Amino acid sequence: MKDVLDRVDADREESVRRLEEFLRIPSISTDAERAGDVRRAADYLAGVFRESGVKKVEVLPTKGHPIVLAEHLEDPSAPTLLVYGHYDVQPIANRAEWKSDPFVPEIRDGKIWARGATDDKGQLLTHVLAAKAHLDVRGRLPLNVKFLIEGEEEIGSEHLDGFVRENRERLACDAIAISDTAMYSPEIPSICTGLRGIAYTEFTIRCATSDLHSGSFGGAVDNPALVLAHLIAGLKDEETGRVLIDGFYDGIIEPTQDERDRWAELPSPDAKYLEMTGVPALYGERPYPVLERIWARPSLDVNGIWGGFTGKGSMTVLPARASAKVSMRLVPGQSPKDVAKKLEAHLRKHLPKTAVLERFEDLHGGQPWVAELDHPAVQAAFRAVEQGFGKKPVPSREGGSIPIVQLFTETLRAPAVLMGFGLHDEGAHGPDEHFDLGNFLAGIRSAACYFDEFPRAVSRA
Amino acid sequence: MKDVLDRVDADREESVRRLEEFLRIPSISTDAERAGDVRRAADYLAGVFRESGVKKVEVLPTKGHPIVLAEHLEDPSAPTLLVYGHYDVQPIANRAEWKSDPFVPEIRDGKIWARGATDDKGQLLTHVLAAKAHLDVRGRLPLNVKFLIEGEEEIGSEHLDGFVRENRERLACDAIAISDTAMYSPEIPSICTGLRGIAYTEFTIRCATSDLHSGSFGGAVDNPALVLAHLIAGLKDEETGRVLIDGFYDGIIEPTQDERDRWAELPSPDAKYLEMTGVPALYGERPYPVLERIWARPSLDVNGIWGGFTGKGSMTVLPARASAKVSMRLVPGQSPKDVAKKLEAHLRKHLPKTAVLERFEDLHGGQPWVAELDHPAVQAAFRAVEQGFGKKPVPSREGGSIPIVQLFTETLRAPAVLMGFGLHDEGAHGPDEHFDLGNFLAGIRSAACYFDEFPRAVSRA
Repeated sequence: MKDVLDRVDADREESVRRLEEFLRIPSISTDAERAGDVRRAADYLAGVFRESGVKKVEVLPTKGHPIVLAEHLEDPSAPTLLVYGHYDVQPIANRAEWKSDPFVPEIRDGKIWARGATDDKGQLLTHVLAAKAHLDVRGRLPLNVKFLIEGEEEIGSEHLDGFVRENRERLACDAIAISDTAMYSPEIPSICTGLRGIAYTEFTIRCATSDLHSGSFGGAVDNPALVLAHLIAGLKDEETGRVLIDGFYDGIIEPTQDERDRWAELPSPDAKYLEMTGVPALYGERPYPVLERIWARPSLDVNGIWGGFTGKGSMTVLPARASAKVSMRLVPGQSPKDVAKKLEAHLRKHLPKTAVLERFEDLHGGQPWVAELDHPAVQAAFRAVEQGFGKKPVPSREGGSIPIVQLFTETLRAPAVLMGFGLHDEGAHGPDEHFDLGNFLAGIRSAACYFDEFPRAVSRA
Repeated sequence: MKDVLDRVDADREESVRRLEEFLRIPSISTDAERAGDVRRAADYLAGVFRESGVKKVEVLPTKGHPIVLAEHLEDPSAPTLLVYGHYDVQPIANRAEWKSDPFVPEIRDGKIWARGATDDKGQLLTHVLAAKAHLDVRGRLPLNVKFLIEGEEEIGSEHLDGFVRENRERLACDAIAISDTAMYSPEIPSICTGLRGIAYTEFTIRCATSDLHSGSFGGAVDNPALVLAHLIAGLKDEETGRVLIDGFYDGIIEPTQDERDRWAELPSPDAKYLEMTGVPALYGERPYPVLERIWARPSLDVNGIWGGFTGKGSMTVLPARASAKVSMRLVPGQSPKDVAKKLEAHLRKHLPKTAVLERFEDLHGGQPWVAELDHPAVQAAFRAVEQGFGKKPVPSREGGSIPIVQLFTETLRAPAVLMGFGLHDEGAHGPDEHFDLGNFLAGIRSAACYFDEFPRAVSRA
C-alpha cells in the first residue's frame, strides 16, 4: 500500500483544491431557490468520479434532488463495498455569525472553513479520492465499489428509501461504508459502533374544556399543567436518573465487556461536556459513566412543553390544556413502538381522575443500531483507520440516530461501517463549519487502506 | 320606604330605557380608537346624574379615560356613602359568537343583551336610579352620597390609584358600596364578604446555556423541562391537594363558624361547576367542600408553562431553558410578597445541582380581603338586599381579586360593601353578555333601601 499512500500524500494540494471547488457550490437542499446549485454540486461530483477513472457514473433524478451513483466493478467474484455520503449541505441561519463567507472556502490553522466542509463534502470525498489514488497508481481497484451520494440528507433523505428499495439488486454489496460521523477526539480516531434509536411522542392533558379564571375556579378544578408536571416528574427518578416507565429497560442488550474496557481507557469527556454545554453539573443515570450514558443507556427527554398563557405579564388563566413532546433514546433490545406504548400506558395508569389524556401521538420512531463488531468488514475498518491515522482507533458510539444506517442494513442485508473523520466541534449545522485538513488527508489514506483491507478480510471470511 | 320602592317599580320601563341608551355607547377602554365613545359614555352618565337631581356632577380628566364624580351632600353631620362603579366595558373578541349586536341592546327572556350589561353599566346604574327615586319622591336623600365611576376598570384602573390618593379628603366616607360581583345563584341574593388575594410569579430553569441535540447529549445533561416538572409537581401533594411550600398555610385566618354554617346550608354547587367547566371530576384540597376551596382556601395554579420546541412535528432538541408562570390565590393571614418569597425559597431548596434557577420574578401581588361582617354598614346591606329582593341574602365570597377594594379600604379607611346583582353565567368578558332585568329592578330597590338603612345603622353605631 505504500505506493497508493505515497500518491495520496503527494496529491494533497490537488485534493484540497477539489474540496475547495466542491465547497464553493451552495448546495443547500432545503432552499428551493438553490435547486440549481444542488444539481451543480451533483454534476461536479460526477465529474470528479469520471476524472478519477470510475467506470460508470450517473446523476439519477428523483422527485427531489438527484442521486449520484458511481460504480466501479472490477471483478464479479470480488467483494463489493457500497460507499454512502451526501453532497447537500445545511442552510446558513445567520451569515453574521460566520468569520468568512460560508461558500468561499478559506484555509486557516490547518482547517478548511466552509459550509459542508465536515458534513459531508469533505468526508465523502475521502473515499472518492482514495479510489482515484488506487486507479492512478495501479490502474485498478482491489474490490468492486459502488458510491451512492444523495442530495437530500439534510432534509430527511425523503427519496432515498424508495431509491434503495427499488435498486436493491444494483446496490447489492458486502458492506456499506459511511463517513458522516465524528472521531472520538482530535487525537483519537474511532469507528462508530453504535447509534441510539428514538421513540418520539406528543401528548395533551385536558382538565376543563376551555380556559377558566384562576380566581373563580382555582382550587376546585385541576390544572392540566400541574397534572402534566406530576406525570412527567413521575417518568424519571430524580435521585438515580432512572426512567420509571414499567418495562422500559426490559430486554436491553448491554455493551460487551471489551467495549466497556476500551471506553474506560478513554480520557474522561466530563470536562469537555461541561465546557460544551455550560451546565452547572453533569447529570445522568447512576452508576454509569458519562460515555456509557450517552452511548449505551436509553434516555428520556422533554423536547417541548407548553400550556396556558406564555406571553409577557400576568394573565390569571387556569388553562384547559397542557402538552408536551417527550422522546426517548433507545439502545439495542428496545423498540420504538413498544416503548411509546409503554409510555402511554404509564401516563394512563398515573392520570388522576380529575384530568383526561386527550391526545397521545407516537410521532416518530427509529431503531437503535450496533455494529457487528466481529464482522470482517468491521475488523478491516479498524485496521484501515489505524494505517491511515497511524493510531489505533477506538470503538466509539453516538447518542443520536442516523436513520439511513437502518435503511441500508435492513434493505441490503449487509453490515454498516461508520468511519467518521469529522470532529464534534467542527460546526456541522452551525456557523463556522470547518474540516481539519490533517484528518481529511488521514481520511483519504484510511479509505484507500480500506479498499485494500476490506476485500482481503471479506474474501477470507 | 314604600313610596320610594313604588316609584322604583313604576319607573321600570324608564330605567330600562336609560340602561339601553347607556349600553349603546361602545365604551371599550382598551381600544384607543374608542376613546371618543368612552368619553361619550362618561358624558351620558353625567347627564343621568344631573337629570336625577344629583347636586354636583363632574367629568374629571385623568391621563387615561375620565372619572365621573357625582356628589350629593345633604348634611355634613349625616353619614356618607361612596359608590364605586365603572362605565367602561370589555372588548368584543369575536362578534360571530354573539347572538345579537353587542352594542344594540336586545331584550329577550327578561334579560337585556349587550356588552357591559352586567359588567358594570347595569349594576352601577342601580345606585344612580335609586338616588333618582329618592330625590323624585322626597326631594332629598337620607344620607350624603359620592359616586366615583371610572372608565379604566377593564384595563387595570391605571389612574384610579393616583386619583383616590390625591382626592382622599374629597372622597372621605363611612363606607364604599360596589356592585360589580355576582349573586350566589339566580334564586339566592348575596353580599360578597371575601375576596382572595394573589401572588403571581414567573421563573425560568436553565441547564445548558444553549439548546442541544437530544441524541448527542440526552442522558448526560439535565433537561430543564424535566427539572421544572419535578419542581412544580413538588409544589402540591397529589393526594391531598395541599400546597407543599414551607410555611404556605402559616397564619391563615379561617372563616367564622357562622359563615361555614351558612355556606353548608347552600345548595351544593358541584353539579353546576362540573357543567360549567367540563372537567371529568372536581378537584381540590381535602377535606374542604368546593365552596370553601374557592372562597376560603388558598390555591396554587400554573398559569403558563413553556420550553423547547412547541411547533408541529418532532424536533430532537434538548432545550436550554423551561419557564412557568405560577400564581397562588391567597386568603386572610397571607401576604403576596411573603408567599412569593416562600415559593422562591422552596424552588431553590429543591433545585438539583444540575440546573440553575436563572430567573424568579414576583410579577404582581394583591392582598386578600374579607368584609367586616359585624360592621353596621355591612349589616345594613344584608337588610337592604333582603328588602330589595324579598329574600334573605347569604354571605358569599369570590375566589378572585378585586384590587380596587383594597385601594379604597386602605386609602379611605372605610369598609367596603360588595352587593352584587349579576349572575355568574351572564357572560361578563365573554360573548352574549346580558343582565337579568328582574335583578336590575331588585338591585335598584336594594340600593334605594341601602340609602335608607345605611345612615340609620351608621349613625346609631
